[in-house]
Amino acid sequence: MSKGSTNTNMPLPSESKAKAKTLVVDKLDSSVSIDMEAPEFKDFAKSMVDYIADYLENVRDRRVLPEVKPGYLQPLIPDAAPEKPENWQDVMKDIERVIMPGVTHWHSPKFHAYFPTANSYPAIVADMLSGAIACIGFTWIASPACTELEVVMLDWLGKMLDLPAEFLACSGGKGGGVIQGTASESTLVALLGAKAKKIQQVKKEHPEWDEHTIIGKLVGYSSAQAHSSVERAGLLGGVKLRSVPADEHNRLRGDALEQAIKEDLAAGLIPFYAVVTLGTTNSCAFDRLDECGAVANKYNVWVHVDAAYAGSAFICPEYRHHMKGIETADSFNFNPHKWMLVNFDCSAMWLKDPSWVVNAFNVDPLYLKHDMQGSAPDYRHWQIPLGRRFRALKLWFVLRLYGVENLQAHIRRHCGFAKQFGDLCQQDKRFELAAEVSMGLVCFRLKGSNERNEALLKRINGRGNIHMVPAKIRDVYFLRMAVCSRFTRSEDMEYSWKEVSAAADDLEQSEAAEKQ
Amino acid sequence: MSKGSTNTNMPLPSESKAKAKTLVVDKLDSSVSIDMEAPEFKDFAKSMVDYIADYLENVRDRRVLPEVKPGYLQPLIPDAAPEKPENWQDVMKDIERVIMPGVTHWHSPKFHAYFPTANSYPAIVADMLSGAIACIGFTWIASPACTELEVVMLDWLGKMLDLPAEFLACSGGKGGGVIQGTASESTLVALLGAKAKKIQQVKKEHPEWDEHTIIGKLVGYSSAQAHSSVERAGLLGGVKLRSVPADEHNRLRGDALEQAIKEDLAAGLIPFYAVVTLGTTNSCAFDRLDECGAVANKYNVWVHVDAAYAGSAFICPEYRHHMKGIETADSFNFNPHKWMLVNFDCSAMWLKDPSWVVNAFNVDPLYLKHDMQGSAPDYRHWQIPLGRRFRALKLWFVLRLYGVENLQAHIRRHCGFAKQFGDLCQQDKRFELAAEVSMGLVCFRLKGSNERNEALLKRINGRGNIHMVPAKIRDVYFLRMAVCSRFTRSEDMEYSWKEVSAAADDLEQSEAAEKQ
Repeated sequence: MSKGSTNTNMPLPSESKAKAKTLVVDKLDSSVSIDMEAPEFKDFAKSMVDYIADYLENVRDRRVLPEVKPGYLQPLIPDAAPEKPENWQDVMKDIERVIMPGVTHWHSPKFHAYFPTANSYPAIVADMLSGAIACIGFTWIASPACTELEVVMLDWLGKMLDLPAEFLACSGGKGGGVIQGTASESTLVALLGAKAKKIQQVKKEHPEWDEHTIIGKLVGYSSAQAHSSVERAGLLGGVKLRSVPADEHNRLRGDALEQAIKEDLAAGLIPFYAVVTLGTTNSCAFDRLDECGAVANKYNVWVHVDAAYAGSAFICPEYRHHMKGIETADSFNFNPHKWMLVNFDCSAMWLKDPSWVVNAFNVDPLYLKHDMQGSAPDYRHWQIPLGRRFRALKLWFVLRLYGVENLQAHIRRHCGFAKQFGDLCQQDKRFELAAEVSMGLVCFRLKGSNERNEALLKRINGRGNIHMVPAKIRDVYFLRMAVCSRFTRSEDMEYSWKEVSAAADDLEQSEAAEKQ
Repeated sequence: MSKGSTNTNMPLPSESKAKAKTLVVDKLDSSVSIDMEAPEFKDFAKSMVDYIADYLENVRDRRVLPEVKPGYLQPLIPDAAPEKPENWQDVMKDIERVIMPGVTHWHSPKFHAYFPTANSYPAIVADMLSGAIACIGFTWIASPACTELEVVMLDWLGKMLDLPAEFLACSGGKGGGVIQGTASESTLVALLGAKAKKIQQVKKEHPEWDEHTIIGKLVGYSSAQAHSSVERAGLLGGVKLRSVPADEHNRLRGDALEQAIKEDLAAGLIPFYAVVTLGTTNSCAFDRLDECGAVANKYNVWVHVDAAYAGSAFICPEYRHHMKGIETADSFNFNPHKWMLVNFDCSAMWLKDPSWVVNAFNVDPLYLKHDMQGSAPDYRHWQIPLGRRFRALKLWFVLRLYGVENLQAHIRRHCGFAKQFGDLCQQDKRFELAAEVSMGLVCFRLKGSNERNEALLKRINGRGNIHMVPAKIRDVYFLRMAVCSRFTRSEDMEYSWKEVSAAADDLEQSEAAEKQ
């Protein structure tokens, strides 16, 4: 199709204005509603409530990994939107026909891929309310409740984790929390704050350097085991990030960090940012925050703690030893939307001094100014997007309707299930653990080559009864079994292990057949 | 509080491990569910459905702007999360007690601030389903339906706007659409893609320049009337953005853009990116895309079209003349979550060649690789965050349950209401329009000084019956009346005008009193 040829039927401006006017008058005179009416909405929404409960309570019985091939969906629906409205009953019917065959069921107890994403009834109901209020909380005045509940919920949550008071708004200092969309955004926001801070500092020391010269010298650090989003934050922020080798337990250590910083300083670079991961994606290893934080503080390097998955466990006192050194951090982030039963998106981030982020992002047009500026945070300055939903409602509902005790029990149950699976694995002499069982994650492999394990995983996922993804550390390929579902029971762990074991039997048979 | 003192009660690792084990065993043995049970969820969610319908159908009767002062909420709730779970009935009761007093009612027909944010029953129900499935659609395999419905919905929507086929996935070329969170993110994503493309090109021409030297020379363009998020994208992306003066109708013109580009080229800079705004925030002016696109193409500058608000109107043929020149664009963005009845967040973005964005962001760890890579888009490479909700469901439900005809009627009704308000304004000799009525926006002011108009707005918002925000163009301050609610009727325009008029009476009286 040649450029612009789709637009040939476009009316000329003069014609179109006349047409628009007629249409407008018609519609204004009409008393017919174009919207779904409230009684119909109630029927539709209540029918959806029943569907949701049925879906979730029985998700265990569905094949966890879909069998569809790429492109499956397009032939199942029309190739253009309908001109006339359809019935909601027809839309409901299409969920099983069109959508469900292509859904990977993240909340099945048979789903063990990635890390969990949260799902709970209280959070779903809170999101309904958020959808109804549908305010955009970019400033305090745009919906005071949206900003203020977020401030208080981040204090509640910070207290649950026993974060140092400097991070909390209720301490009366500069610090406070904010809900970001994802941990990736938190990492990027912290990086941009750290970048702004360091540029300002270096400009004072070297007024002869321009900003791009300084940026060209900046260097940040993370463990080689850090999440891919850290590398991506470096790409997006246009600065060098150096990957520092982890120790034999996959942890970033203070001496390795210090050595890297010293080398870079000697090479004329400017260290500005370090990401300390508490609970890595590959193996749920914990960087030594106590060591790395002290080193970073010594060299005036911003410390960002990425505890995206494992941070939820810090609501249990017995796991807080992993946070030792938290007082050295400038920013801390974890995702209640991963392991704390608050539906995506809800990534909690605390900053000791948000002004570096606020000043880096601040653009303040007249239409967003208001009389109360300065008396409450205008969260738009704390994040990448301008718009933001009323997400604090999800935290409020989940914290109240579970209570801290049940959220702790949820964490402890998942850790217990991982231990159970790890024990099953160690009882089978064909297998070995690739790392110590950590939180809700078990890293394991068949003894032998990477190829054997790749073949094993292919068989496991091919059977479609459980779903896992692999990882590789220092060229050793292994399988990751993450406990993900809040519906998981002890029997599910037995089932999942049987699936792994059956796939291994199958692999051994074909290996034997090949040898003959 | 001294550093770290909140952590003094933290158990030592050895103690904590023992404690954890006991707790885990207790919980695993327990058959008591820690989660809200399905029947209770159904009662709670259905009660929320009734609340939502009641809230929205009667939102007109609430004071649109809350009367609370900063800090109102904290004393209304406890200062820490409860240890034990509460009843959902108590949480429901607190909505009116704690939340509603601090809500700015964006969906009231008396809300005229900013631009609309969408809210509809079909979108709310779709979001419920999205919350139940709660998949994270970062790759195709992570939930094929999530990716595939998005591909097809962006094609449906692109066809509704009559976008050139090059932007659509169904054309079989490189192009396609994606749902971003916000227009701010789309502007940033396009900027980063343009930056990556230009850096690669310049590296070939000047292999002796390093990347930071090139970045230091890059310069992008937008109208002085562009949204604040454009300036912010420049800050985030670490590149210069130049603000080009708009013409007397607040439109960016081709000659002004070309002059700026020529000056920068003469100064040794490298033009790489231009944002063309269709429907500015201040006055809903339309940059001349036909002129600017041609100029940008000539100088090999990426054209990003930001039609965040007004883009929804292009589903009506009579407004498409504003898109003339769309074939020159590299990326196009508008927000169905503003004016097309799809709840936030749903910002639709199309790219003619997504590979520039994909390659700029691509980090590909093993745990995210899958066998089907390349046969369907892995949307995580198209956006800033890694995680993403199943947002295409909202588009699907809204398009089917309204139908194109009713969505067009919605746009035309809003445009008609703005016309009506503009006429009322022009019939009052004390007032003047600050710009031509455009789409659902009326820019107006009292004849006379800016100070008079600031005083007028303060009175209007102080009365709390309607809510507006101001803007300023070339030092002329004016009020913006945006038609925002889907519940708006012709009588609401009369009501809002009476409020403005009464505030003006009030102002005139106090002006007269001051003179005496």
